Amino acid sequence: MPTYCVEMIEGRTVEQKKKLVEEITRVSVEVLGGTPEMVDILITDVKRENWATGGKLWTERS
Amino acid sequence: MPTYCVEMIEGRTVEQKKKLVEEITRVSVEVLGGTPEMVDILITDVKRENWATGGKLWTERS
Amino acid sequence: MPTYCVEMIEGRTVEQKKKLVEEITRVSVEVLGGTPEMVDILITDVKRENWATGGKLWTERS
Amino acid sequence: MPTYCVEMIEGRTVEQKKKLVEEITRVSVEVLGGTPEMVDILITDVKRENWATGGKLWTERS
Amino acid sequence: MPTYCVEMIEGRTVEQKKKLVEEITRVSVEVLGGTPEMVDILITDVKRENWATGGKLWTERS
Amino acid sequence: MPTYCVEMIEGRTVEQKKKLVEEITRVSVEVLGGTPEMVDILITDVKRENWATGGKLWTERS
Repeated sequence: MPTYCVEMIEGRTVEQKKKLVEEITRVSVEVLGGTPEMVDILITDVKRENWATGGKLWTERS
Repeated sequence: MPTYCVEMIEGRTVEQKKKLVEEITRVSVEVLGGTPEMVDILITDVKRENWATGGKLWTERS
Repeated sequence: MPTYCVEMIEGRTVEQKKKLVEEITRVSVEVLGGTPEMVDILITDVKRENWATGGKLWTERS
Repeated sequence: MPTYCVEMIEGRTVEQKKKLVEEITRVSVEVLGGTPEMVDILITDVKRENWATGGKLWTERS
Repeated sequence: MPTYCVEMIEGRTVEQKKKLVEEITRVSVEVLGGTPEMVDILITDVKRENWATGGKLWTERS
Repeated sequence: MPTYCVEMIEGRTVEQKKKLVEEITRVSVEVLGGTPEMVDILITDVKRENWATGGKLWTERS
Protein backbone atom coordinates (compact mmCIF):
# COMPACT_ATOMS: atom_id res chain seq x y z
CA MET A 1 0.00 0.00 0.00
CA PRO A 2 0.66 1.31 -2.45
CA THR A 3 1.25 -1.80 -4.54
CA TYR A 4 2.95 -1.64 -7.94
CA CYS A 5 2.73 -4.40 -10.55
CA VAL A 6 5.21 -4.11 -13.37
CA GLU A 7 4.82 -6.11 -16.55
CA MET A 8 7.96 -6.14 -18.68
CA ILE A 9 9.52 -8.23 -21.43
CA GLU A 10 11.78 -10.87 -19.90
CA GLY A 11 15.53 -10.48 -20.02
CA ARG A 12 16.24 -7.76 -17.48
CA THR A 13 19.04 -8.51 -15.03
CA VAL A 14 18.65 -8.73 -11.27
CA GLU A 15 20.79 -5.57 -11.09
CA GLN A 16 18.23 -3.69 -13.18
CA LYS A 17 15.38 -4.99 -11.01
CA LYS A 18 17.23 -3.96 -7.82
CA LYS A 19 17.74 -0.47 -9.17
CA LEU A 20 14.16 -0.22 -10.45
CA VAL A 21 12.47 -1.19 -7.17
CA GLU A 22 14.81 1.08 -5.19
CA GLU A 23 13.96 4.06 -7.38
CA ILE A 24 10.22 3.41 -7.61
CA THR A 25 10.00 3.03 -3.85
CA ARG A 26 11.90 6.29 -3.34
CA VAL A 27 9.71 8.17 -5.83
CA SER A 28 6.55 6.68 -4.35
CA VAL A 29 7.40 7.83 -0.82
CA GLU A 30 8.42 11.28 -2.06
CA VAL A 31 5.21 11.87 -3.97
CA LEU A 32 2.58 9.92 -2.03
CA GLY A 33 4.05 9.91 1.47
CA GLY A 34 4.14 6.91 3.80
CA THR A 35 7.20 4.78 4.52
CA PRO A 36 9.29 2.61 2.16
CA GLU A 37 8.18 -0.48 4.06
CA MET A 38 4.58 0.16 2.89
CA VAL A 39 5.56 -0.08 -0.79
CA ASP A 40 5.22 -3.48 -2.47
CA ILE A 41 6.38 -4.06 -6.03
CA LEU A 42 5.65 -7.18 -8.06
CA ILE A 43 7.49 -7.74 -11.32
CA THR A 44 6.23 -10.02 -14.07
CA ASP A 45 8.72 -11.14 -16.71
CA VAL A 46 6.64 -11.55 -19.85
CA LYS A 47 7.85 -13.81 -22.68
CA ARG A 48 7.93 -12.14 -26.11
CA GLU A 49 5.41 -14.69 -27.38
CA ASN A 50 2.99 -13.50 -24.67
CA TRP A 51 2.87 -9.77 -25.44
CA ALA A 52 1.26 -8.29 -28.51
CA THR A 53 1.03 -4.74 -29.78
CA GLY A 54 -0.76 -3.76 -32.96
CA GLY A 55 -2.06 -7.32 -33.37
CA LYS A 56 1.39 -8.93 -33.52
CA LEU A 57 3.32 -10.87 -30.89
CA TRP A 58 6.70 -9.36 -29.99
CA THR A 59 8.36 -12.47 -31.45
CA GLU A 60 7.15 -11.23 -34.82
CA ARG A 61 7.95 -7.55 -34.31
CA SER A 62 11.55 -6.50 -35.03
CA MET B 1 -4.96 1.53 -24.44
CA PRO B 2 -7.00 -0.49 -24.42
CA THR B 3 -4.98 -3.19 -22.69
CA TYR B 4 -6.12 -6.81 -22.58
CA CYS B 5 -4.79 -9.37 -20.10
CA VAL B 6 -5.64 -12.96 -20.93
CA GLU B 7 -5.25 -15.70 -18.35
CA MET B 8 -5.39 -19.16 -19.89
CA ILE B 9 -4.33 -22.69 -19.05
CA GLU B 10 -0.85 -23.35 -20.46
CA GLY B 11 -0.41 -25.47 -23.56
CA ARG B 12 -1.63 -23.24 -26.35
CA THR B 13 0.67 -23.04 -29.38
CA VAL B 14 2.31 -19.89 -30.66
CA GLU B 15 0.08 -20.23 -33.74
CA GLN B 16 -3.02 -20.03 -31.53
CA LYS B 17 -1.62 -17.01 -29.70
CA LYS B 18 -0.81 -15.27 -33.02
CA LYS B 19 -4.33 -15.85 -34.26
CA LEU B 20 -5.89 -14.79 -30.94
CA VAL B 21 -4.06 -11.46 -30.67
CA GLU B 22 -4.74 -10.69 -34.33
CA GLU B 23 -8.47 -11.28 -33.89
CA ILE B 24 -8.82 -9.52 -30.54
CA THR B 25 -6.99 -6.49 -31.92
CA ARG B 26 -9.24 -6.41 -34.98
CA VAL B 27 -12.42 -6.74 -32.89
CA SER B 28 -11.21 -4.10 -30.45
CA VAL B 29 -10.59 -1.52 -33.17
CA GLU B 30 -13.93 -2.31 -34.83
CA VAL B 31 -15.95 -1.89 -31.65
CA LEU B 32 -14.02 0.70 -29.65
CA GLY B 33 -12.24 2.65 -32.38
CA GLY B 34 -8.62 3.77 -32.28
CA THR B 35 -5.76 2.13 -34.17
CA PRO B 36 -4.33 -1.41 -33.88
CA GLU B 37 -1.06 0.05 -32.59
CA MET B 38 -2.92 1.28 -29.48
CA VAL B 39 -3.98 -2.24 -28.51
CA ASP B 40 -1.75 -4.14 -26.09
CA ILE B 41 -2.43 -7.76 -25.18
CA LEU B 42 -0.66 -9.66 -22.42
CA ILE B 43 -1.10 -13.42 -22.18
CA THR B 44 -0.47 -15.40 -19.02
CA ASP B 45 0.00 -19.17 -19.35
CA VAL B 46 -1.38 -20.58 -16.11
CA LYS B 47 -0.27 -24.01 -14.90
CA ARG B 48 -3.13 -26.41 -14.10
CA GLU B 49 -1.96 -26.56 -10.50
CA ASN B 50 -2.45 -22.77 -10.27
CA TRP B 51 -6.09 -22.50 -11.36
CA ALA B 52 -9.02 -23.70 -9.30
CA THR B 53 -12.73 -23.77 -10.00
CA GLY B 54 -15.30 -25.06 -7.53
CA GLY B 55 -12.61 -25.47 -4.88
CA LYS B 56 -10.47 -27.89 -6.90
CA LEU B 57 -7.25 -27.31 -8.81
CA TRP B 58 -7.46 -28.17 -12.53
CA THR B 59 -4.93 -30.95 -11.94
CA GLU B 60 -7.68 -32.67 -9.95
CA ARG B 61 -10.53 -31.93 -12.32
CA SER B 62 -10.82 -34.26 -15.30
CA MET C 1 -11.07 -19.98 -18.11
CA PRO C 2 -9.92 -18.29 -20.12
CA THR C 3 -10.41 -14.99 -18.30
CA TYR C 4 -9.99 -11.64 -20.05
CA CYS C 5 -9.44 -8.35 -18.24
CA VAL C 6 -9.87 -5.27 -20.38
CA GLU C 7 -8.65 -1.89 -19.23
CA MET C 8 -10.06 0.96 -21.27
CA ILE C 9 -10.61 4.69 -20.95
CA GLU C 10 -14.09 5.34 -19.56
CA GLY C 11 -16.86 6.56 -21.81
CA ARG C 12 -17.78 3.48 -23.84
CA THR C 13 -21.49 2.74 -24.07
CA VAL C 14 -23.16 -0.41 -22.84
CA GLU C 15 -23.88 -1.22 -26.51
CA GLN C 16 -20.14 -1.17 -27.24
CA LYS C 17 -19.42 -3.38 -24.24
CA LYS C 18 -22.14 -5.86 -25.30
CA LYS C 19 -20.68 -6.07 -28.77
CA LEU C 20 -17.11 -6.34 -27.47
CA VAL C 21 -17.76 -9.23 -25.06
CA GLU C 22 -19.82 -11.07 -27.67
CA GLU C 23 -17.03 -10.83 -30.22
CA ILE C 24 -14.17 -11.63 -27.85
CA THR C 25 -16.03 -14.67 -26.57
CA ARG C 26 -16.67 -15.88 -30.12
CA VAL C 27 -13.04 -15.36 -31.16
CA SER C 28 -11.80 -17.03 -28.00
CA VAL C 29 -13.86 -20.19 -28.56
CA GLU C 30 -12.86 -20.31 -32.24
CA VAL C 31 -9.13 -20.06 -31.54
CA LEU C 32 -8.71 -21.73 -28.16
CA GLY C 33 -11.65 -24.14 -28.08
CA GLY C 34 -13.92 -24.74 -25.10
CA THR C 35 -17.44 -23.35 -24.72
CA PRO C 36 -18.64 -19.74 -24.50
CA GLU C 37 -19.79 -20.36 -20.93
CA MET C 38 -16.12 -20.89 -19.92
CA VAL C 39 -15.13 -17.39 -21.05
CA ASP C 40 -15.18 -14.64 -18.43
CA ILE C 41 -14.50 -11.01 -19.33
CA LEU C 42 -13.97 -8.21 -16.84
CA ILE C 43 -13.95 -4.64 -18.04
CA THR C 44 -12.36 -1.78 -16.13
CA ASP C 45 -13.38 1.77 -17.06
CA VAL C 46 -10.28 3.85 -16.37
CA LYS C 47 -10.58 7.59 -15.76
CA ARG C 48 -8.35 9.74 -17.96
CA GLU C 49 -6.57 11.05 -14.86
CA ASN C 50 -5.62 7.44 -14.01
CA TRP C 51 -3.87 6.43 -17.23
CA ALA C 52 -0.52 7.79 -18.35
CA THR C 53 1.52 7.21 -21.47
CA GLY C 54 4.89 8.82 -22.08
CA GLY C 55 4.89 10.26 -18.58
CA LYS C 56 1.69 12.27 -19.02
CA LEU C 57 -1.83 11.58 -17.78
CA TRP C 58 -4.43 11.33 -20.55
CA THR C 59 -6.09 14.46 -19.14
CA GLU C 60 -2.99 16.33 -20.32
CA ARG C 61 -2.58 14.59 -23.68
CA SER C 62 -4.53 15.89 -26.70
CA MET D 1 -17.47 -14.69 -10.16
CA PRO D 2 -16.10 -14.01 -7.73
CA THR D 3 -12.55 -14.39 -9.02
CA TYR D 4 -9.55 -14.48 -6.70
CA CYS D 5 -5.98 -13.83 -7.81
CA VAL D 6 -3.33 -14.82 -5.30
CA GLU D 7 0.24 -13.61 -5.63
CA MET D 8 2.65 -15.52 -3.43
CA ILE D 9 6.35 -16.25 -3.21
CA GLU D 10 7.12 -19.48 -5.07
CA GLY D 11 7.85 -22.68 -3.17
CA ARG D 12 4.44 -23.72 -1.87
CA THR D 13 3.54 -27.37 -2.41
CA VAL D 14 0.59 -28.59 -4.43
CA GLU D 15 -0.87 -29.86 -1.14
CA GLN D 16 -0.82 -26.32 0.25
CA LYS D 17 -2.43 -24.97 -2.90
CA LYS D 18 -5.15 -27.67 -2.76
CA LYS D 19 -5.93 -26.80 0.81
CA LEU D 20 -5.85 -23.06 0.14
CA VAL D 21 -8.29 -23.11 -2.79
CA GLU D 22 -10.62 -25.48 -0.94
CA GLU D 23 -10.75 -23.15 2.07
CA ILE D 24 -11.02 -19.91 0.14
CA THR D 25 -13.85 -21.33 -1.94
CA ARG D 26 -15.68 -22.49 1.18
CA VAL D 27 -15.24 -19.11 2.92
CA SER D 28 -16.28 -17.26 -0.22
CA VAL D 29 -19.56 -19.18 -0.56
CA GLU D 30 -20.29 -18.82 3.17
CA VAL D 31 -19.80 -15.06 3.19
CA LEU D 32 -20.83 -13.96 -0.30
CA GLY D 33 -23.29 -16.69 -1.28
CA GLY D 34 -23.45 -18.40 -4.68
CA THR D 35 -22.12 -21.87 -5.44
CA PRO D 36 -18.56 -23.24 -5.26
CA GLU D 37 -18.58 -23.73 -9.02
CA MET D 38 -18.81 -19.93 -9.45
CA VAL D 39 -15.54 -19.36 -7.59
CA ASP D 40 -12.37 -19.13 -9.67
CA ILE D 41 -8.95 -18.84 -8.07
CA LEU D 42 -5.74 -18.07 -9.93
CA ILE D 43 -2.43 -18.48 -8.16
CA THR D 44 0.77 -16.76 -9.27
CA ASP D 45 4.06 -18.15 -7.96
CA VAL D 46 6.33 -15.11 -7.74
CA LYS D 47 10.12 -15.53 -7.76
CA ARG D 48 11.92 -13.83 -4.88
CA GLU D 49 13.79 -11.65 -7.36
CA ASN D 50 10.44 -10.35 -8.61
CA TRP D 51 8.93 -9.10 -5.35
CA ALA D 52 10.18 -6.08 -3.44
CA THR D 53 9.11 -4.56 -0.15
CA GLY D 54 10.70 -1.45 1.33
CA GLY D 55 12.74 -0.95 -1.83
CA LYS D 56 14.54 -4.29 -1.65
CA LEU D 57 13.97 -7.51 -3.59
CA TRP D 58 13.16 -10.52 -1.40
CA THR D 59 16.42 -12.11 -2.54
CA GLU D 60 18.16 -9.36 -0.55
CA ARG D 61 15.88 -9.44 2.51
CA SER D 62 16.42 -11.88 5.37
CA MET E 1 2.81 -11.10 0.68
CA PRO E 2 0.76 -12.95 -0.07
CA THR E 3 -1.52 -10.51 -1.86
CA TYR E 4 -5.10 -11.38 -2.77
CA CYS E 5 -7.15 -9.53 -5.36
CA VAL E 6 -10.85 -10.27 -5.30
CA GLU E 7 -13.11 -9.30 -8.18
CA MET E 8 -16.78 -9.48 -7.30
CA ILE E 9 -20.07 -8.07 -8.53
CA GLU E 10 -20.85 -4.86 -6.65
CA GLY E 11 -23.47 -4.79 -3.94
CA ARG E 12 -21.78 -6.60 -1.05
CA THR E 13 -22.04 -4.86 2.31
CA VAL E 14 -19.11 -3.65 4.36
CA GLU E 15 -20.06 -6.34 6.91
CA GLN E 16 -19.59 -9.03 4.27
CA LYS E 17 -16.24 -7.54 3.23
CA LYS E 18 -15.09 -7.41 6.88
CA LYS E 19 -15.99 -11.04 7.38
CA LEU E 20 -14.42 -12.07 4.07
CA VAL E 21 -11.03 -10.44 4.67
CA GLU E 22 -10.93 -11.76 8.23
CA GLU E 23 -11.56 -15.32 7.07
CA ILE E 24 -9.24 -15.23 4.06
CA THR E 25 -6.44 -13.84 6.20
CA ARG E 26 -6.97 -16.57 8.79
CA VAL E 27 -7.04 -19.32 6.15
CA SER E 28 -3.99 -17.88 4.42
CA VAL E 29 -1.89 -17.89 7.60
CA GLU E 30 -3.07 -21.40 8.51
CA VAL E 31 -2.17 -22.88 5.14
CA LEU E 32 0.80 -20.81 3.95
CA GLY E 33 2.30 -19.63 7.24
CA GLY E 34 3.55 -16.13 7.97
CA THR E 35 1.69 -13.53 10.02
CA PRO E 36 -1.70 -11.86 9.40
CA GLU E 37 0.07 -8.52 8.97
CA MET E 38 1.76 -9.90 5.83
CA VAL E 39 -1.57 -10.55 4.11
CA ASP E 40 -2.96 -7.84 1.85
CA ILE E 41 -6.37 -8.13 0.24
CA LEU E 42 -7.71 -5.82 -2.45
CA ILE E 43 -11.37 -5.98 -3.38
CA THR E 44 -12.77 -4.72 -6.66
CA ASP E 45 -16.51 -4.08 -6.89
CA VAL E 46 -17.37 -4.81 -10.50
CA LYS E 47 -20.49 -3.30 -12.07
CA ARG E 48 -22.81 -5.83 -13.73
CA GLU E 49 -22.29 -4.07 -17.06
CA ASN E 50 -18.56 -4.75 -16.73
CA TRP E 51 -18.59 -8.52 -16.26
CA ALA E 52 -19.50 -10.98 -18.97
CA THR E 53 -19.80 -14.75 -18.96
CA GLY E 54 -20.72 -16.79 -22.01
CA GLY E 55 -20.56 -13.67 -24.18
CA LYS E 56 -23.24 -11.77 -22.27
CA LEU E 57 -22.92 -8.95 -19.74
CA TRP E 58 -24.42 -9.72 -16.33
CA THR E 59 -26.97 -6.97 -16.93
CA GLU E 60 -28.41 -9.24 -19.62
CA ARG E 61 -28.17 -12.53 -17.73
CA SER E 62 -30.90 -13.62 -15.30
CA MET F 1 5.74 -2.03 -22.43
CA PRO F 2 6.63 -1.85 -19.72
CA THR F 3 3.21 -1.43 -18.12
CA TYR F 4 2.81 -0.34 -14.49
CA CYS F 5 -0.35 -0.83 -12.47
CA VAL F 6 -0.49 1.13 -9.26
CA GLU F 7 -3.03 0.33 -6.57
CA MET F 8 -3.34 3.06 -3.97
CA ILE F 9 -5.82 4.26 -1.38
CA GLU F 10 -8.07 6.92 -2.91
CA GLY F 11 -7.60 10.56 -2.07
CA ARG F 12 -4.45 11.51 -3.96
CA THR F 13 -4.68 14.71 -5.97
CA VAL F 14 -4.24 14.98 -9.70
CA GLU F 15 -1.04 16.93 -8.99
CA GLN F 16 0.36 13.94 -7.09
CA LYS F 17 -0.63 11.58 -9.90
CA LYS F 18 1.00 13.87 -12.51
CA LYS F 19 4.22 13.95 -10.53
CA LEU F 20 4.14 10.19 -9.87
CA VAL F 21 3.70 9.13 -13.50
CA GLU F 22 6.34 11.63 -14.64
CA GLU F 23 8.88 10.24 -12.16
CA ILE F 24 8.07 6.56 -12.69
CA THR F 25 8.34 7.01 -16.45
CA ARG F 26 11.72 8.75 -16.07
CA VAL F 27 13.06 6.08 -13.72
CA SER F 28 11.76 3.30 -15.96
CA VAL F 29 13.53 4.64 -19.06
CA GLU F 30 16.75 5.24 -17.08
CA VAL F 31 16.88 1.71 -15.68
CA LEU F 32 15.21 -0.42 -18.36
CA GLY F 33 15.87 1.60 -21.50
CA GLY F 34 13.34 2.28 -24.26
CA THR F 35 11.46 5.53 -24.76
CA PRO F 36 8.99 7.33 -22.47
CA GLU F 37 6.24 6.74 -25.03
CA MET F 38 6.55 2.97 -24.42
CA VAL F 39 5.70 3.34 -20.73
CA ASP F 40 2.05 2.92 -19.73
CA ILE F 41 0.89 3.51 -16.17
CA LEU F 42 -2.56 2.64 -14.84
CA ILE F 43 -3.62 3.93 -11.45
CA THR F 44 -6.40 2.37 -9.39
CA ASP F 45 -7.88 4.46 -6.57
CA VAL F 46 -8.91 1.90 -3.96
CA LYS F 47 -11.57 2.77 -1.38
CA ARG F 48 -10.54 2.17 2.23
CA GLU F 49 -13.32 -0.37 2.60
CA ASN F 50 -11.77 -2.37 -0.25
CA TRP F 51 -8.24 -2.83 1.11
CA ALA F 52 -7.36 -5.03 4.05
CA THR F 53 -4.09 -5.69 5.82
CA GLY F 54 -3.75 -8.06 8.76
CA GLY F 55 -7.35 -9.17 8.34
CA LYS F 56 -8.85 -5.70 8.81
CA LEU F 57 -10.24 -3.25 6.28
CA TRP F 58 -8.48 0.13 6.25
CA THR F 59 -11.73 1.72 7.44
CA GLU F 60 -11.15 -0.13 10.71
CA ARG F 61 -7.41 0.50 10.99
CA SER F 62 -5.94 3.66 12.52
